[in-house]
Amino acid sequence: MAALFIKTPYLPSHSITKFPNTHLAPTFRVSVSVSVPPGRSKRRLRVSSGLIEPDGGKLVELLVDEPLKDLKKGEALSLPRISLSSIDLQWVHVLSEGWASPLRGFMRESEFLQTLHFNTLRLENGSLVNMSVPIVLAIDDSQKHRIGESTKVALFDSNNNPVAILKDIEIYKHPKEERIARTWGTTASGLPYVEEAIVNAGNWLIGGDLEVLEPIKYHDGLDRFRLSPTELREEFTRRNADAVFAFQLRNPVHNGHALLMTDTRRRLLDMGYKNPILLLHPLGGYTKADDVPLSWRMKQHEKVLEDGVLDPETTVVSIFPSPMHYAGPTEVQWHAKARINAGANFYIVGRDPAGMGHPTEKRDLYDADHGKKVLSMAPGLERLNILPFKVAAYDKTQGKMAFFDPSRPQDFVFISGTKMRTLAKNKENPPDGFMCPGGWEVLVEYYESLVPTINGKVPEAVPA
Amino acid sequence: MAALFIKTPYLPSHSITKFPNTHLAPTFRVSVSVSVPPGRSKRRLRVSSGLIEPDGGKLVELLVDEPLKDLKKGEALSLPRISLSSIDLQWVHVLSEGWASPLRGFMRESEFLQTLHFNTLRLENGSLVNMSVPIVLAIDDSQKHRIGESTKVALFDSNNNPVAILKDIEIYKHPKEERIARTWGTTASGLPYVEEAIVNAGNWLIGGDLEVLEPIKYHDGLDRFRLSPTELREEFTRRNADAVFAFQLRNPVHNGHALLMTDTRRRLLDMGYKNPILLLHPLGGYTKADDVPLSWRMKQHEKVLEDGVLDPETTVVSIFPSPMHYAGPTEVQWHAKARINAGANFYIVGRDPAGMGHPTEKRDLYDADHGKKVLSMAPGLERLNILPFKVAAYDKTQGKMAFFDPSRPQDFVFISGTKMRTLAKNKENPPDGFMCPGGWEVLVEYYESLVPTINGKVPEAVPA
Repeated sequence: MAALFIKTPYLPSHSITKFPNTHLAPTFRVSVSVSVPPGRSKRRLRVSSGLIEPDGGKLVELLVDEPLKDLKKGEALSLPRISLSSIDLQWVHVLSEGWASPLRGFMRESEFLQTLHFNTLRLENGSLVNMSVPIVLAIDDSQKHRIGESTKVALFDSNNNPVAILKDIEIYKHPKEERIARTWGTTASGLPYVEEAIVNAGNWLIGGDLEVLEPIKYHDGLDRFRLSPTELREEFTRRNADAVFAFQLRNPVHNGHALLMTDTRRRLLDMGYKNPILLLHPLGGYTKADDVPLSWRMKQHEKVLEDGVLDPETTVVSIFPSPMHYAGPTEVQWHAKARINAGANFYIVGRDPAGMGHPTEKRDLYDADHGKKVLSMAPGLERLNILPFKVAAYDKTQGKMAFFDPSRPQDFVFISGTKMRTLAKNKENPPDGFMCPGGWEVLVEYYESLVPTINGKVPEAVPA
Repeated sequence: MAALFIKTPYLPSHSITKFPNTHLAPTFRVSVSVSVPPGRSKRRLRVSSGLIEPDGGKLVELLVDEPLKDLKKGEALSLPRISLSSIDLQWVHVLSEGWASPLRGFMRESEFLQTLHFNTLRLENGSLVNMSVPIVLAIDDSQKHRIGESTKVALFDSNNNPVAILKDIEIYKHPKEERIARTWGTTASGLPYVEEAIVNAGNWLIGGDLEVLEPIKYHDGLDRFRLSPTELREEFTRRNADAVFAFQLRNPVHNGHALLMTDTRRRLLDMGYKNPILLLHPLGGYTKADDVPLSWRMKQHEKVLEDGVLDPETTVVSIFPSPMHYAGPTEVQWHAKARINAGANFYIVGRDPAGMGHPTEKRDLYDADHGKKVLSMAPGLERLNILPFKVAAYDKTQGKMAFFDPSRPQDFVFISGTKMRTLAKNKENPPDGFMCPGGWEVLVEYYESLVPTINGKVPEAVPA
């Protein structure tokens, strides 16, 4: 796994000087790449002041300090209990590592309302940070009743292990219809996240400050790729990055993507940066049923790196733990904002980011250009440089992916995600040069792994 | 009409020094009150620097200069034509007088998207002003086709008179579902403004800069009460106001309102202001069918002033020309922002402002507290002081409206708008002290004026 990042657990570090409140993590691990000479990774790391500052000035990490852990676990067992769904747990993960800095836990009503109405949160100093997607925890009437007058609750995972304490809680109404309408710009039934996480959720939301007992792990063989914002910042610093450009994805990487990323690095070098680093950052939380599951996507990304399509020296591949909303222009802000917290100061935005088909009408849910426009105008993202995606397509004259040239449209073939999936399902090959052969094989293998139903149709994949 | 404001057309004035671009109006009229000694109103007025600055630093007035008027009218006749609905015309009115400053016309897509997603507009200097309600003009396919490549269109009223030129136009898709969802937080059918102005509107929006040919008039006997922001600022200055507190209303004034307004003035005096002036500012544009029409509300407000319930010396009654969205927390920001532009630095906000019942469910559309909360957090409204409405109810022990005392709830009777309307329809009297007798008579008279249907039920009023 040439250039994917592995966490090495033997290098505790409390030497962070810039973010005094970020060393709450009981074991502080350093990210290393096998492409780096081993000696370099043994130095104690310091977070460079060259990286973009996190929202609010410092990363908010919510893991309890090691000496307090047993005490807090004992306390958790004594508190009213809330069971977390898998999506709830992903949000605890997101919050615990500071992707949503300066949030310190699930949103209270004031934060929820600011998010719904303004896509921002106001800091105590009066300035605004971006926050476009509600990060909330729903409870039902009986849970609310059980909590009673308690000011704290304990959050438990599906195995009934305590995960976190939520303190100074505030319980308020869950205005589902309004939340959906203002987040997605529609209330049509069939929105994946809504069906999965909102429709059957409780009628109350509970906000508060989180104290997370242990780092969130999934034990799926991929935890080593889940670098926190602090770990990513350390990695960028270790590599002496003077620019970090993030590419959010939830699909297999084809050579058009690779072209774009390589071209972006070239443009940043032209702008005078000496060492721009790519953060290739597949989304790892909840995705809809017909997306390729995370484990297969990671296999595919690995092959792409092995095949040398991207340069391991200048590429960091890591998993972004957030669940997917498919909320288009609203969600792309979250995707960008979270990457600021991980140290990225450039963000590549494509056509119709976080978009999908309308669930009940024959059209795209969002205007394909709105995501890019909204992102470029979003309050709280002024510090981030937005890089619009240049359109790549298969150039028949060159036999490879190339930037679309509008002066000779007849030479180009656009291969949509649907087309790509259909080819892979049918074990057909795409045009030479569309995707590296190793990566394509992974895709074909994935679709083969799906058991066909009686009528011969391949069923939809289950969410990753 | 003791203390209502009458525009006196004999006092042209171009002496405004603070807002150099605001003297576009061909005839500049000064507001006077009959309660003011006649001599004072004859001085030339200067806008005081003591009033709150308009959004963007200056009021944007969009009337063409007198010398250019004939030229522009001629040009309008030569351009592609768009017919305005009555609501469209109300928005032209709003825009023309600078209530929506710094907007210079119907929104282009960038402004529309910022409004939908952020409830703000970013100025060239990077700062944000509040703008929560889309002010847009819809056209259909055939109108778009007729416009062709023209960069300007002419707007015509229902009598086929040219009203304005819209220049440097931009035509973009009208995403109705998304607009409705993000503005109202629901897409349930039956929202009054949506049914009236969006459902059957065209699939395109046209934005651009407005050149308005003549001041918008309605010839309904109430034009003299429609003071522009500039005229209101002049009036406040003439009265040496050092604080202006605005009260938005679309209902008859009862003694609870009067108590609140009197009490607010007392609180402002306690804070050290020497001469706080009340802007009692009924909404004059589109309202839903069961609201009391503007003409009857104005008669009622007149009686309230005549009866001495409010002090004419410290009260300015004028009509706010905006149509009503009934969009709760989103719309209350618009109501507040527009009053900043008219010179108000205090805004009184009540329970469930701009709210209504859910159109298809048995509940209020908005949480009654959200409007106040959202208003207090809204980006771009930092300069405005929000004054939460103190709850008044009928105190049986005193036989008058009083602030609710939670220590003796049994002594209070809450008289809702529905209850008030039912009493007036049935010609029953409310408790003594609920409303001044003259005002109540107007209400009874209004319901009498509605012709009963065959089954004896009073029909809903038509929109004002």
